[in-house]
Amino acid sequence: MRIKVINPNTTQAMTDNIGRVADRYTADSTEVVAVSPERGPASIESYYDDYLAVPGLLEEILREEKGVEAKEGDDAFDAYVVACWGDPGIEACREVTEKPVVGIAEASMYVANMLGARFSVATILPRAKDFIEAAVVKTGLESKCASVRCTDLTVIETEEAREATVEGLLEVSRLAVEEDGAEAICLGCAGMGGLDKALEAELPVPVVDSVGAGAVLAESLVSLGKSTSKVMTHKRPESKEMSGYPSLFEFTE
Amino acid sequence: MRIKVINPNTTQAMTDNIGRVADRYTADSTEVVAVSPERGPASIESYYDDYLAVPGLLEEILREEKGVEAKEGDDAFDAYVVACWGDPGIEACREVTEKPVVGIAEASMYVANMLGARFSVATILPRAKDFIEAAVVKTGLESKCASVRCTDLTVIETEEAREATVEGLLEVSRLAVEEDGAEAICLGCAGMGGLDKALEAELPVPVVDSVGAGAVLAESLVSLGKSTSKVMTHKRPESKEMSGYPSLFEFTE
Amino acid sequence: MRIKVINPNTTQAMTDNIGRVADRYTADSTEVVAVSPERGPASIESYYDDYLAVPGLLEEILREEKGVEAKEGDDAFDAYVVACWGDPGIEACREVTEKPVVGIAEASMYVANMLGARFSVATILPRAKDFIEAAVVKTGLESKCASVRCTDLTVIETEEAREATVEGLLEVSRLAVEEDGAEAICLGCAGMGGLDKALEAELPVPVVDSVGAGAVLAESLVSLGKSTSKVMTHKRPESKEMSGYPSLFEFTE
Amino acid sequence: MRIKVINPNTTQAMTDNIGRVADRYTADSTEVVAVSPERGPASIESYYDDYLAVPGLLEEILREEKGVEAKEGDDAFDAYVVACWGDPGIEACREVTEKPVVGIAEASMYVANMLGARFSVATILPRAKDFIEAAVVKTGLESKCASVRCTDLTVIETEEAREATVEGLLEVSRLAVEEDGAEAICLGCAGMGGLDKALEAELPVPVVDSVGAGAVLAESLVSLGKSTSKVMTHKRPESKEMSGYPSLFEFTE
Amino acid sequence: MRIKVINPNTTQAMTDNIGRVADRYTADSTEVVAVSPERGPASIESYYDDYLAVPGLLEEILREEKGVEAKEGDDAFDAYVVACWGDPGIEACREVTEKPVVGIAEASMYVANMLGARFSVATILPRAKDFIEAAVVKTGLESKCASVRCTDLTVIETEEAREATVEGLLEVSRLAVEEDGAEAICLGCAGMGGLDKALEAELPVPVVDSVGAGAVLAESLVSLGKSTSKVMTHKRPESKEMSGYPSLFEFTE
Amino acid sequence: MRIKVINPNTTQAMTDNIGRVADRYTADSTEVVAVSPERGPASIESYYDDYLAVPGLLEEILREEKGVEAKEGDDAFDAYVVACWGDPGIEACREVTEKPVVGIAEASMYVANMLGARFSVATILPRAKDFIEAAVVKTGLESKCASVRCTDLTVIETEEAREATVEGLLEVSRLAVEEDGAEAICLGCAGMGGLDKALEAELPVPVVDSVGAGAVLAESLVSLGKSTSKVMTHKRPESKEMSGYPSLFEFTE
Repeated sequence: MRIKVINPNTTQAMTDNIGRVADRYTADSTEVVAVSPERGPASIESYYDDYLAVPGLLEEILREEKGVEAKEGDDAFDAYVVACWGDPGIEACREVTEKPVVGIAEASMYVANMLGARFSVATILPRAKDFIEAAVVKTGLESKCASVRCTDLTVIETEEAREATVEGLLEVSRLAVEEDGAEAICLGCAGMGGLDKALEAELPVPVVDSVGAGAVLAESLVSLGKSTSKVMTHKRPESKEMSGYPSLFEFTE
Repeated sequence: MRIKVINPNTTQAMTDNIGRVADRYTADSTEVVAVSPERGPASIESYYDDYLAVPGLLEEILREEKGVEAKEGDDAFDAYVVACWGDPGIEACREVTEKPVVGIAEASMYVANMLGARFSVATILPRAKDFIEAAVVKTGLESKCASVRCTDLTVIETEEAREATVEGLLEVSRLAVEEDGAEAICLGCAGMGGLDKALEAELPVPVVDSVGAGAVLAESLVSLGKSTSKVMTHKRPESKEMSGYPSLFEFTE
Repeated sequence: MRIKVINPNTTQAMTDNIGRVADRYTADSTEVVAVSPERGPASIESYYDDYLAVPGLLEEILREEKGVEAKEGDDAFDAYVVACWGDPGIEACREVTEKPVVGIAEASMYVANMLGARFSVATILPRAKDFIEAAVVKTGLESKCASVRCTDLTVIETEEAREATVEGLLEVSRLAVEEDGAEAICLGCAGMGGLDKALEAELPVPVVDSVGAGAVLAESLVSLGKSTSKVMTHKRPESKEMSGYPSLFEFTE
Repeated sequence: MRIKVINPNTTQAMTDNIGRVADRYTADSTEVVAVSPERGPASIESYYDDYLAVPGLLEEILREEKGVEAKEGDDAFDAYVVACWGDPGIEACREVTEKPVVGIAEASMYVANMLGARFSVATILPRAKDFIEAAVVKTGLESKCASVRCTDLTVIETEEAREATVEGLLEVSRLAVEEDGAEAICLGCAGMGGLDKALEAELPVPVVDSVGAGAVLAESLVSLGKSTSKVMTHKRPESKEMSGYPSLFEFTE
Repeated sequence: MRIKVINPNTTQAMTDNIGRVADRYTADSTEVVAVSPERGPASIESYYDDYLAVPGLLEEILREEKGVEAKEGDDAFDAYVVACWGDPGIEACREVTEKPVVGIAEASMYVANMLGARFSVATILPRAKDFIEAAVVKTGLESKCASVRCTDLTVIETEEAREATVEGLLEVSRLAVEEDGAEAICLGCAGMGGLDKALEAELPVPVVDSVGAGAVLAESLVSLGKSTSKVMTHKRPESKEMSGYPSLFEFTE
Repeated sequence: MRIKVINPNTTQAMTDNIGRVADRYTADSTEVVAVSPERGPASIESYYDDYLAVPGLLEEILREEKGVEAKEGDDAFDAYVVACWGDPGIEACREVTEKPVVGIAEASMYVANMLGARFSVATILPRAKDFIEAAVVKTGLESKCASVRCTDLTVIETEEAREATVEGLLEVSRLAVEEDGAEAICLGCAGMGGLDKALEAELPVPVVDSVGAGAVLAESLVSLGKSTSKVMTHKRPESKEMSGYPSLFEFTE
């Protein structure tokens, strides 16, 4: 099985880490390819970043789906993972392919929801709180989410300042457990991939590596032989003129 | 007062109509400028279209906010209106300006909610139903929305085939009133701007022209002297590298 | 355009201020007439006050609608505003007229909801909290309301002790922003009309003058040419005997 | 135990029937006194009627609570029942007395909720649907309410045309069971008091006589020795001037 | 009237107290029989205890319903009360009898909901919080529940250490009132039966004795002549083989 | 990896099929052991069956966890799957082991939620509708569930009458898609395991084999190295006397 994990920001170091984490949790027989889009922000911390990241993210799926402009390794994926907690553009991704698309936000919430009665999300800057909560609502699990707790970390810092990241996450996770009743923690940023064990060593609750969760749930959908529903919402986009984008973005009859 | 109404698709005929409608309902002293982005889809009927429209939509605000690359008439707007039922990218728009930004979806729902106990949205193709419902949820009024009723109309048809559009809207609006308990109808596409009176002539309920609603509510926010909150969610985007977009999209310290 | 703003309590000084505030925010061409009912409480701070205020409030609409017992200036209004945060009796008001009726509670929430991701209401005595929250639920925006924060102010004090009122509102608004995540504040009492700028000078978030919001949204509905839906909930009341009230209150075939 | 059942409309024949029904279900040792207010509508079918009924309803409680203007039999009640499905003014009633106040809407829903997994309300004219649903929301049981089904009956008809009322209720109750999944029916008008057995003879589900439910739940609260909470929402109304009402309505320090 | 109150744990001292409390609040003419099952846990503090208690609880109803293996006093009950806050197995109880079955959790919430605008539940160990909240959701009143506040008390301690129990309940009840806005308190464990008055002496809010509430609401259902709905959810269980249980548990055509 | 899939009913033919289905979807390196409890109903179609199945289900976990009374193959499982749509007793299962426990209901909903915008559950007898809906609520995904559609099939029939089962499921699934807007179908009974492909051949939407979903999600949790949270709700049960059950059920310090 081949899974393409798309980090929708353009920071290659983060993509590399995401790839390593996804690889660690998936089966030996699963090949993980982690990529960054060519266009988009270096990190996603606002709605602005989120919206500007989606075209590049879609491009990573369109290339294979349309069989054009393929880069090496671009073919024959069995599923896609969107590796940003917020699951940006995931509905659009599902429109352009029949292959399963898994968001790391939804995946981590499903996992957390099977481990405890309520989960919290430990994440980056306070400004992202509404954006993170919107992902919880989009998935439908708001009644199970005890809280979204923000640190003062930027996305890049989660990747580069691992120790400070662990410290920050421990602090807000403890508050989530003690004040909000969280019984499990979702790591609310792809940059936090690989930190779950370090946090579990200090916390009384399970910590879900969202990148890992996204990767293994993508495997699950492939194992079950499922495809995205094409009956209504996620139908192939209508054919129409698309100005200012490469022709790859245009759908025709 | 000057209001910039942005039709986030690239179909100029629709933009022209949107401008006329907005102008009709606003005060004589209000100058309405209706524009289309340069990049993006010819119409918005899917999540895919929606996400690809947002960069171009943002560009229309960024140009003035950053005072660069200005086109004629690009300065000194008091408010922005996003003229697509779905309010695409509206959170991001609010991040890049302090001026009020009004979505025609939210505006039409507020108006409808003051006219009857429950409203329905009459809109385009069935595939857009989830997208339209997401706008209702984003605004927070799902408990007041009796139903979203879809026609078989594309966005372009609402603009070009006015008679068929009225027929289609009458049919689903009657179902909304008789079967779903709707007491007011929101016209769920900017292309339907200007059809409210024709529909009201045949229906027992008020019909809200969403473009008109967006324009007059933008006037209201300006009259009240309000600016978008910059305390958390809608702060200015963080400065970072933005690949594959014009430099206009980059924020720096 | 002529708008009748009804302060449903009998305190003329408050009515005068409400009129001034509504006038300030509406267009020059809009004539605002602010009135108090003849019957009812001097202020509305409980459900008891609320229910006893409604007959007098209705009378102010019935006089014009029925063209009888008119007082000077009672004719040809284009819209009504109910100027008490709680929107008392607004459903009944909508039954007795086809003209738009706007409550200042709903209006202020719509405005706040376009300015920030979540709003709080800063209001009077704690005993009114449930009453205020009921207005939020009636409007349908409970998922967007971060909190209702009460001061120790009575309605009359908000009118007479402006400095203490500002102090009290600043204190609870700061708590709303810091502890509840509010990104905008609704002033939860008509007596607070005119204080928004003073509060915005001290707070990091926009503050919505609810009286102003009610007035400009009434203008908006008139501009759009909308009437209250008469299809079901807000039909004209059934004709029947009405004991103990002036004949003005009786509807006949 | 003495229970005052207040029919908030002025139709004495309905009050007499309500008294008989309440008496039938309560203990022999319970004395039921059923009354109508002096002021108010002959029936409650709209929000308008509802609001105009409340002052008269409050008067029936105030007379005893304040010990003035007492009519024969006005003293020493242990609890009050508000006998209109909609529980009009019940929050205000709870403010003016410490004695338990039970609404027949809430009471019937509690009973129905203990008999089946979901209940429907069978009620009067369609125009009352929103008003009835508001009572469900006020009680908090909207997730358990399968539907509100309206007949074409006015309140007075439910009282005077018993056979037609049974027919109408059977028709909508069958729809509630077969199409909405109702497993119990609440009779949504005090005028329907006494019809439960006739309906149960024809329907496969239990039918709750709301007047009876209100009366026995009032008995329950008295048996438990409970008083209305005076800590916040239902505190005694503030003392203030009350224009246009008898002095009975004024509270003073 | 005869009411069987089933304490679903096997601790006889608690059963005796439950019987005394139920007896105190019910009419003189009502005979209360309080029993414990033969099989099950000594107390219910976890989902595990809850599930293991249900078979024994069902047995107490099945014996009478099936008229076999009757113990003295096992016949001719008019209603059943399940005396554990959590209403364990109440849906199953309703399947095996047509007689009304009342849970003390739901009963206490209905009572509290008629006394104040919002109630809290004061209960045992923190580990039971989710279990208690599930009972609130099952009843449908989550929007009226201000909080579930846990003490450090085990079920047995509530029965044996009355003074410490009162202390613990006072502490969390005060927090519920002051921090969560509770206006009434439900005693969230059958072992707390009989403590309401002692708590009301110290608290500014009414305290609902859940055992008492269950008993009087069972009386109410009997007075109203109601039976459990057999139309769908609570139909008699299908006949099938039931391994490892006494034959009493098997249903046959 | 070794996964124990527990069919909580005692019908061995169904257990055999469940084992085959779980085996088909899991990795070659995963050993699936499917078992039935010794005590409990032959099928689960009511709350009664559900509650009586749980003790036997728990026994299957307790044996290994406590290392006593082990049957051949009872040791060293990495995760448990509860194979009944309704996830009976899953909270209690999570209390008695640290190993992940997955319910097939929750698992199938997570999978369906990643394939379409809304899912429906196609299930057995109408009497189980409330029971099935309770599982949706327990998981937290009610806002994503378009409907629960019941056939007239018993659990045993789903196992024995495969053709009729396919017919019944096709009929209700088509209704779910056409009338309720379902974009994916969950097979709402473990007996339906293995029918997904036959249904997908006839339906325009993906069909989730719930047994398969449960098995692969159990694999996912093991791959991620997660354990059930022991911080609060799912702590080990308190030690106490447990009457009428084998000593295996008793917990001691």
